[in-house]
Amino acid sequence: MNMDYEALHRQRAKELVGKMTLAEKLAQMRYEAPAIERLGIPAYNWWNECLHGVARSGCATVFPQAIGMAASFDPALLETVAGAISEEARAKYNAYREFGDTQIYQGLTMWSPNINIFRDPRWGRGHETYGEDPYLTGHMGAAFVKGLQGYDEQYRKVDATLKHYAVHSGPESERHEFDARVDEKDLYETYLWAFRYCIEHAHPSAVMGAYNRINGEAACASPTYLKKILYQEFGFEGYVVSDCGAICDINEHHKLTQTPAESAALAVNNGCQLNCGDAYKWLKTAVAMGLLDEETVTAAVEKLFTARFRLGMFDEDCPYNRISLDVVECEEHKQLNRKMARESIVLLKNDGILPLKKGCKIAVIGPNADDKSVLLANYNGTPSEYCTILRGIQEYNGGNVRYAYGCHVAGKIIGAWDEHPEREAVIAARNADVVVLCMGLQPCLEGEEGEVNNGSYSGDKKDLELPLPQQILYKEIMKLNKPVVFVNVSGSCVNLWEQDQQCNAVLQCFYPGAEGGRALAEILFGAYSPSGRLPVTFYRSADDLPDFRDYSMENRTYKFFKGPVVYPFGHGLTYADIQERWIDEKTAEVINRGGMDTDYTILRFEYIPHKNLCGFQRVHIRTGETIRVEF
Amino acid sequence: MNMDYEALHRQRAKELVGKMTLAEKLAQMRYEAPAIERLGIPAYNWWNECLHGVARSGCATVFPQAIGMAASFDPALLETVAGAISEEARAKYNAYREFGDTQIYQGLTMWSPNINIFRDPRWGRGHETYGEDPYLTGHMGAAFVKGLQGYDEQYRKVDATLKHYAVHSGPESERHEFDARVDEKDLYETYLWAFRYCIEHAHPSAVMGAYNRINGEAACASPTYLKKILYQEFGFEGYVVSDCGAICDINEHHKLTQTPAESAALAVNNGCQLNCGDAYKWLKTAVAMGLLDEETVTAAVEKLFTARFRLGMFDEDCPYNRISLDVVECEEHKQLNRKMARESIVLLKNDGILPLKKGCKIAVIGPNADDKSVLLANYNGTPSEYCTILRGIQEYNGGNVRYAYGCHVAGKIIGAWDEHPEREAVIAARNADVVVLCMGLQPCLEGEEGEVNNGSYSGDKKDLELPLPQQILYKEIMKLNKPVVFVNVSGSCVNLWEQDQQCNAVLQCFYPGAEGGRALAEILFGAYSPSGRLPVTFYRSADDLPDFRDYSMENRTYKFFKGPVVYPFGHGLTYADIQERWIDEKTAEVINRGGMDTDYTILRFEYIPHKNLCGFQRVHIRTGETIRVEF
Repeated sequence: MNMDYEALHRQRAKELVGKMTLAEKLAQMRYEAPAIERLGIPAYNWWNECLHGVARSGCATVFPQAIGMAASFDPALLETVAGAISEEARAKYNAYREFGDTQIYQGLTMWSPNINIFRDPRWGRGHETYGEDPYLTGHMGAAFVKGLQGYDEQYRKVDATLKHYAVHSGPESERHEFDARVDEKDLYETYLWAFRYCIEHAHPSAVMGAYNRINGEAACASPTYLKKILYQEFGFEGYVVSDCGAICDINEHHKLTQTPAESAALAVNNGCQLNCGDAYKWLKTAVAMGLLDEETVTAAVEKLFTARFRLGMFDEDCPYNRISLDVVECEEHKQLNRKMARESIVLLKNDGILPLKKGCKIAVIGPNADDKSVLLANYNGTPSEYCTILRGIQEYNGGNVRYAYGCHVAGKIIGAWDEHPEREAVIAARNADVVVLCMGLQPCLEGEEGEVNNGSYSGDKKDLELPLPQQILYKEIMKLNKPVVFVNVSGSCVNLWEQDQQCNAVLQCFYPGAEGGRALAEILFGAYSPSGRLPVTFYRSADDLPDFRDYSMENRTYKFFKGPVVYPFGHGLTYADIQERWIDEKTAEVINRGGMDTDYTILRFEYIPHKNLCGFQRVHIRTGETIRVEF
Repeated sequence: MNMDYEALHRQRAKELVGKMTLAEKLAQMRYEAPAIERLGIPAYNWWNECLHGVARSGCATVFPQAIGMAASFDPALLETVAGAISEEARAKYNAYREFGDTQIYQGLTMWSPNINIFRDPRWGRGHETYGEDPYLTGHMGAAFVKGLQGYDEQYRKVDATLKHYAVHSGPESERHEFDARVDEKDLYETYLWAFRYCIEHAHPSAVMGAYNRINGEAACASPTYLKKILYQEFGFEGYVVSDCGAICDINEHHKLTQTPAESAALAVNNGCQLNCGDAYKWLKTAVAMGLLDEETVTAAVEKLFTARFRLGMFDEDCPYNRISLDVVECEEHKQLNRKMARESIVLLKNDGILPLKKGCKIAVIGPNADDKSVLLANYNGTPSEYCTILRGIQEYNGGNVRYAYGCHVAGKIIGAWDEHPEREAVIAARNADVVVLCMGLQPCLEGEEGEVNNGSYSGDKKDLELPLPQQILYKEIMKLNKPVVFVNVSGSCVNLWEQDQQCNAVLQCFYPGAEGGRALAEILFGAYSPSGRLPVTFYRSADDLPDFRDYSMENRTYKFFKGPVVYPFGHGLTYADIQERWIDEKTAEVINRGGMDTDYTILRFEYIPHKNLCGFQRVHIRTGETIRVEF
């Protein structure tokens, strides 16, 4: 952003807000901001989403879920992806605004990315994040913000919003009343690090306040964590929006105030200018009661209108106005999507069975093989064309593929009169040269409170095991002594101990987006060498971990966990024989001793005294080549 | 069937049954027949389904739903389809029996076809039938039975079961206690005609007794309708199986008996040899109480084992044992499926907009455009590859297709924070040369009691209207004055009055199977001329019809309905300019005066005194050609 333009946006906002009555100003602080016709301001709904593609707004390129994109360890590619996303968002906004106003999921203010730390694998929303490491999260988050917000000197392409500030990662069932207790070290080193990094390096327009309390203060209305740390310490200059309904939680669930008017005043006074939910309907009362002065209101609304001017909402000559719907799901974005999907897949084990020979007899088995929902994850758009894992393998192998659903993904008891799918799976496996088992979780088993139907866990997982019907089918298939490639599709760690011991190859696929099936097929058959790395630890059991409610980092993540794991953070194989040689602390040599050309990401760790990621670089390295990498 | 072989099967059955104890015999009369190891008889579950492809048994070629196949008016093709289905069923059976027994949906005894008369469009299961006309139903049913049962002299390929005998067509919510009252004329002319025709012309192995009563007698245990009419009058020689749980209904819901033992005895004594459900667990009691004698039991079990011998279940050299899994979803079946799907689509109106020009800008809009469930209908298998309507159009048009979901298929209220899909649809339509609106119903809105979640209607429809969200979207789209092709996807009549008035073209697609999208695209773009005809009347309103519970045919179906309709039974256009000229009562000339080559079905009606289908022939007729058709 050029500072002259920035000053101009501020000036225009100041002038426009200056013409508003108090009531008009207060109404503009709600996410459903009404029109002010006499001032030429159209109605604008601030809520939009684009975690891994424009979401909840019809067709869009659906990229891999955030956790999968994190596995690429490729911020440069993520920035390009974010650029494609904001291109599609702009195209849609341009079409929607012709209706004269902008409804929910139609605007330019994106409540993405989610840069919370995936500190516990049970958290249902962990797959929205970039994993358990603050350094990786910060770098991926910053890249995403930059790509979204664009590079124009005068206008922001879309607003990025860092969420959820802060110390937010379940339990989902308690999020409206939960108090996350955290010490200074964990706060800065783990929970705030990526927020600070993104703010300093990518200048996001906005931050979203979380539902929970932090050490007793409501995250959306906190003198310490908002006013002092976010604004003063981190120098954040944007606006803060509350999570949806979070302000009313302050009186209703956190019981920190008596009334929504008090909650609203507390939030605004501490720097939360925009409210998703209904609480700011009470701002008028708050002002009347003397809990909030008009000056603070005016400053808040000026911030919001500065953002809207910066987005070019009131300028017909904003260059982004020319982006047409042709960009939505265009071929270029599809190719980009497939590239990201390829990079998001992690090869965990390979005894040499991979890559598969094209044309061999393959049994593709499991509830995730032909499932659309696992491509899409949550906070997703709708792909008008998509490729499941099964379809990807079918297209690639050109026949000779037998599919069997095998079992339900979880729980549901099979009644006496229901279909019994196990035997078909056994038959398919018996008749195949190789079995590709597609198991794991689905977004219906891990997600957000209210969105996921898994009983009392409200979106969180109770353990790290494969759901029972899959365990049973897995055992049946393994009895056949066929070569097995295990594809784990999930947004979080699943206990793959047995699979690591027993299967010929194990891949982690996350939720791979609309091109996921094709990308996986390309890797299975060796058109590309896998190159992803785990952005989270794959533990053996939730029993090895501290209480889910305990926000101390003690014995959590690769940094502090003391027990044995199945696959460590950063694990990921390729099809090449790679040797990594550290020459000094800041210089490494990577040697590809054969196999095939591949991408490879060098991770640099420091020990302070715990292990700590402090650098990573992705290189493309050909067979026989040696590459020197400097940090 | 060669009569010598038939005698041999009977003889072998007699001998085998002769070695059984009474308890063993009684157990064989349950659908879950246990093994009798000392006699070398494996456990066998009699329940299998193949209404439009092997169902509930994993992957299979999923043909169009029965109502769609009826629209083809092509019994010869249906017979070929049934042959493909039984081929897949045999292949699966051969694989399953290696497990040593045969579980539910793995056997050779198919509880298909459903030849009930679709007398009222509100019936949720109507789409399982061949429509409202007994003559068409009889001919399609017979063709299906023949194709299923095969042409071997010695062995039956699979057993076909005519269901539900008889006078069965809703309401679903009352089926377990309903008494269908019907007079002699309607009984023979409408409700029994197709059963008799199929029995005489196709010799089905089995008949399934319905849940309901008929004029006070339980269909599964009726002296009049089973013993007297089915066996004696129609000369049926096969076995009768009860619908699932229907025997217990006799005491529990129909209150015709006091105990399940009495119900079971009543059923067996009237010719129901096989029980799906638990009632025949009480047969031992029934015999002990003197309600049933062992001779009757022995005869019943001999019938059942005759069927099993006839199926070759005890012969290693049965030629059908050699059918391998390679036939399941093979290319030949896929092509056959697409051909049937093409013939099942009915062009209801065309002002000349169809066929579409390839490459034009198309907006494909609506909740049925990219929905898998509408391809599959109910009693379905799982296609390992399928093509939705959207995908069919995308593949065919090669780009230039914009998709918008548009609205939910029915009911669900859109919450303030949910996705709002309407505007995207309007945008897509605005930017297109032509709009293809894919609306109608889904199997979740019409189906069987217990399977469908539509509140108190238990699978039936409360009216014939498009669900409200679709009506609203339809109006929005029509306001744009774009050319609109309306594709109604449903298993039953929907009121298309407005569409007929306002849209440029209207097609009825039924539930078109795994190849449905490709077949529809081929028709939309003119690779094939449509040739289907409606097997049911398309009424304007359910208010024009008698009470749903009233089984009198008065004012029902094209034969007796007196009011105006939107599209009559038999309606269906082609892309050719066809003239039909009747030379005498039994001879017609069909002239193709131009346009394109097409299939065309000539319908022959008699007036006795009501209009009555009494013949139909499908011909392929080239441009300029005249074909003489003799009946």
